[in-house]
Amino acid sequence: MEVLLPLRFKGESVLVLDQRLLPREEKYVERYDLEGIYESIRSMELRGAPLIGIAAAYGMVLGVQNQSFTHPIDLLEAVRKNAERLNRARPTAKNLFWATDRLVRLVERNIDLPVEEIIYRMRAEAIKINEEDVEICRNIGENFLKVLRPGMRLLTHCNAGALATYRYGTATAPMYLGQERGWNFQVFVDETRPYNQGARLTAYELHRAGIDATLICDNMAAMVMSKGWVDAVLVGSDRVAANGDAANKIGTLNLSILARHFGIPFYVATPTPTLDLDLPDGSRIPIEERDSEEITHFQGIRVAPEGIKVFNPAFDVSPHENITGIVTEKGIAFPPFQSSLKALAEAPFLTGKG
Amino acid sequence: MEVLLPLRFKGESVLVLDQRLLPREEKYVERYDLEGIYESIRSMELRGAPLIGIAAAYGMVLGVQNQSFTHPIDLLEAVRKNAERLNRARPTAKNLFWATDRLVRLVERNIDLPVEEIIYRMRAEAIKINEEDVEICRNIGENFLKVLRPGMRLLTHCNAGALATYRYGTATAPMYLGQERGWNFQVFVDETRPYNQGARLTAYELHRAGIDATLICDNMAAMVMSKGWVDAVLVGSDRVAANGDAANKIGTLNLSILARHFGIPFYVATPTPTLDLDLPDGSRIPIEERDSEEITHFQGIRVAPEGIKVFNPAFDVSPHENITGIVTEKGIAFPPFQSSLKALAEAPFLTGKG
Repeated sequence: MEVLLPLRFKGESVLVLDQRLLPREEKYVERYDLEGIYESIRSMELRGAPLIGIAAAYGMVLGVQNQSFTHPIDLLEAVRKNAERLNRARPTAKNLFWATDRLVRLVERNIDLPVEEIIYRMRAEAIKINEEDVEICRNIGENFLKVLRPGMRLLTHCNAGALATYRYGTATAPMYLGQERGWNFQVFVDETRPYNQGARLTAYELHRAGIDATLICDNMAAMVMSKGWVDAVLVGSDRVAANGDAANKIGTLNLSILARHFGIPFYVATPTPTLDLDLPDGSRIPIEERDSEEITHFQGIRVAPEGIKVFNPAFDVSPHENITGIVTEKGIAFPPFQSSLKALAEAPFLTGKG
Repeated sequence: MEVLLPLRFKGESVLVLDQRLLPREEKYVERYDLEGIYESIRSMELRGAPLIGIAAAYGMVLGVQNQSFTHPIDLLEAVRKNAERLNRARPTAKNLFWATDRLVRLVERNIDLPVEEIIYRMRAEAIKINEEDVEICRNIGENFLKVLRPGMRLLTHCNAGALATYRYGTATAPMYLGQERGWNFQVFVDETRPYNQGARLTAYELHRAGIDATLICDNMAAMVMSKGWVDAVLVGSDRVAANGDAANKIGTLNLSILARHFGIPFYVATPTPTLDLDLPDGSRIPIEERDSEEITHFQGIRVAPEGIKVFNPAFDVSPHENITGIVTEKGIAFPPFQSSLKALAEAPFLTGKG
């Protein structure tokens, strides 16, 4: 099994997999400085909230480590400016702001140390952000395996995969862990219209890792389920409300209704930072509408009539009553979610490293 | 309102709309003889079972009308040969065989008449086949309007439209009749992966006719329904069993489950010849699996990883318990379908022309 990493920190540079070229080409771009990382994030060479955070953290390191600063306060000034710059790369990426802010605060906390020592600690912090992500994903995978069995047939949607994180992914984490342990999962992958993240990314990374993956169109899930070929549905999430309502890529609601109809367990993978327990339910989660050309065109070729109206919501909300369990790095929340999610959010994160 | 006809008989030739060029270009090809019609059917310039039947009937006329036959028996021989030739254009098209056979039998029945008179009757028979189709579709539309109301929001899948017939279509018939009467339906059109008949054909013909149509991806239907934006789902059918189980384009089962979940009426349009009452239920309807490249490629461009497994069923079966009514040219069958379908199949077809 060969693991495809979407990013690799090499000390003096970062190798970034250009995901826009998948599945046709696997090409890494080497980025040596802040502007390079800015460009990788802005141009969507890399995407996925956790991965953007990791890249930004390394970008903060590259932005200062080969420059000379007379005083720590000069370093802090540069770090603050760099954070502002990076934050403009994707103006709505929460993980981006979170990661750059974490580096700024580290420098502030250590402002009494020598410049070299602070930069050393910045590098350590960026690596820690990266490792924490791996740890969260692995734990989500471990928790998933408690409710799955070897040989199960799984179905997933969009890319809550290793390419959106650093390794393992969230909904895909049990697939990779299962692969390491010979559990022989079979995975159906929805192509995930209109942006085809399932076909381009999830199918790619699973197939690349030697996992038994079968690509289907989104509208075939019902038929596949009706044949008795799906034992569990595993999806990611963009935001989970206090009552367990979960926003995720458009088409997830569809799957949650089908799973319920056929009595198939439906699990949502969610790192606890994605929980939004101040939000009572999913009804107030704003749904972004995207450009109609995502549906009317394919790579510049018109595939729908000129002037046709299009509705293109990017997300939908699966109601909590369709969800069997919400799998976090700290454990699985089962209904009633109001109490189980709160308990998990407040619980400490005990990693395998103890 | 401008009606887009997929075919026009001009006496000495047939104009065939090349549907493969839609939605980018509206181009008619003029066909003067049997080989021309053979080519139109074979190359899928035209498609849709009823339309193939109509084209074949005209092809049978073009195949003999400008030739001289000494005896009626020579004409019959040519007609039989032509039928065999046309039948090879699409080897699984039931309507094709049915139409050519109807012309052969007409010649057999009239073998005592002069050659000119027989050819005259062949032309009349082909026009009758065409007009019968219009009549069937219009009656399906009229029957639909009995269960719909002005201003309703409808959702449809694939192309059970005018482009698959001569005019009106089946599932789209009430939309066109409603348009003529100012009923102001709003129609959501599933793009219908992987072959995109919804985006390419249904969205095209409805928009072209001035009907309020909105294109969505198949996986958005659940979200649109959850918002309360759909009052009824209208789909076509490829085959309906005695108990009401209905085979149709892949993704129809999905819609039928969603409609049931949200309590939305789900109607299947079916000319009575599409009823297969010898078939007790849908479990034995064979499901064609199509080429994986329909999903892995788009116009020759790879959009999924090399070597990925693909499942690409062309049809699925919606179980009768998800179906509110089956709308035929003779009336609507309601559950229990066993008896209501049988009654409709046996009923005479009383057209408006009485």
